[in-house]
Amino acid sequence: MKLVLRIAYLGKGYNGWQVQPGKLTVQGEICKAAYKLFGRECDVTGCSRTDSAVNANEFVAAVTEHGKPYLETAVPSEKITRAFCSLLPNDICVYGVAWVDESFHPRYDVERKEYVYRIFDRAEMSPFEVDRAYHFPHRLSDAAIEQMALAAKHFEGKHDFTSFMAQGSKITDAVRNVYSADVRRGRDENIVEFTVSADGFLYNMVRIMTGTLIDVGKGKRSSEDIDGIILTKDRSAAGETAPACGLYLNRVIYKKNIF
Amino acid sequence: MKLVLRIAYLGKGYNGWQVQPGKLTVQGEICKAAYKLFGRECDVTGCSRTDSAVNANEFVAAVTEHGKPYLETAVPSEKITRAFCSLLPNDICVYGVAWVDESFHPRYDVERKEYVYRIFDRAEMSPFEVDRAYHFPHRLSDAAIEQMALAAKHFEGKHDFTSFMAQGSKITDAVRNVYSADVRRGRDENIVEFTVSADGFLYNMVRIMTGTLIDVGKGKRSSEDIDGIILTKDRSAAGETAPACGLYLNRVIYKKNIF
Repeated sequence: MKLVLRIAYLGKGYNGWQVQPGKLTVQGEICKAAYKLFGRECDVTGCSRTDSAVNANEFVAAVTEHGKPYLETAVPSEKITRAFCSLLPNDICVYGVAWVDESFHPRYDVERKEYVYRIFDRAEMSPFEVDRAYHFPHRLSDAAIEQMALAAKHFEGKHDFTSFMAQGSKITDAVRNVYSADVRRGRDENIVEFTVSADGFLYNMVRIMTGTLIDVGKGKRSSEDIDGIILTKDRSAAGETAPACGLYLNRVIYKKNIF
Repeated sequence: MKLVLRIAYLGKGYNGWQVQPGKLTVQGEICKAAYKLFGRECDVTGCSRTDSAVNANEFVAAVTEHGKPYLETAVPSEKITRAFCSLLPNDICVYGVAWVDESFHPRYDVERKEYVYRIFDRAEMSPFEVDRAYHFPHRLSDAAIEQMALAAKHFEGKHDFTSFMAQGSKITDAVRNVYSADVRRGRDENIVEFTVSADGFLYNMVRIMTGTLIDVGKGKRSSEDIDGIILTKDRSAAGETAPACGLYLNRVIYKKNIF
């Protein structure tokens, strides 16, 4: 069996998910904690490769013995969560564990992922939102948010999203199926949230979508422009890449329920 | 005229509000920023003396020239907010300014203050709530929260709150008027909030009230016990002092509206 972890983390301070020599990464911290907990070297495979400073409300990772497709341990499941939390730094939390079949792959078996992008739109930044939201210092009116929501609807469906992919990306098939895309003011009245779910995402896709939606909010583009931007398949037709700190991997859904 | 600032800050990393030699404090940071902005030494007087690690959603401070009851500056009001924000560290924000009469005192003129205490009650701590809420690792049921809310109601009214004051405090008159006290689950479903407003607060009063309410939530005390605890005028009759990180100065209300 493989051990699967449900993780949340604050991206600030980490060079993203993936291990890089000499750099602090979320994967690296989990590898270290797994070594201490299970007393042997482990491989940790993630559902995604989040960038530097990107956050996760839900991230799924599998832990196996190094070079093996399984993990054997005498540590009872109910103790694994607590043990990981005490071994990990405060800004990474394991809040669920499950045991799954060896055939499970946390990235290839994803059916759908959901991202949320948080925009803080008050003139002065809140000290509680630094590194947790993008500070856009102009209030977005209800009408502006409505236009952004209309624009987001144009992302829905199966499209070639080359225009919304970072230049230099080596992906050749940029077709993705966006199941839902919405913009609304959050429960916190100073936060506007863009929520998007799809079968997969290209490099920087949500951040470029957000930059383009902000242009719509500013009145620089209309919601009708999105179809045209998609059709050009040209990165320069879309808006800027919004900063990493506003982005959250929010949900990861598999064909089979794991947790 | 005096300059009045409306401030928010994350308490973590500061030794509270008040300047102490060789220590990082919120008052100290604002003094330094005021010096840079106005080009001369300033006195900064706060509405309260929050402890180490206590947070503020709203804190009011007056800025005057050192040793004078006024401040003279050519900097236009609309630029002062932004200038302070760029001079201050990210975890302190000035989000409003006003000019008031020299007779105004940010502490003595307070009519009412409101504090909020945030309790995060999921088994595993969220990486996004570290330093911003107290981690109570057992879910508080609706019934438990209802009992806590009933208990909080017993704080309301004019009472001698000696039982809810840190031992060693030099205050002799511990009578305070609590206008409202309530416990409910927050907009965030993992946060339980205790909100209390009064004409003034004793040292550690909200944190001791919270510790006592948590005992009610646990079933260790009943909501009916509060009256008796108040009547003993004995600190040892009340619960533990809840940690500083969950506490927020939330609103400061003056006889005259300032902002």
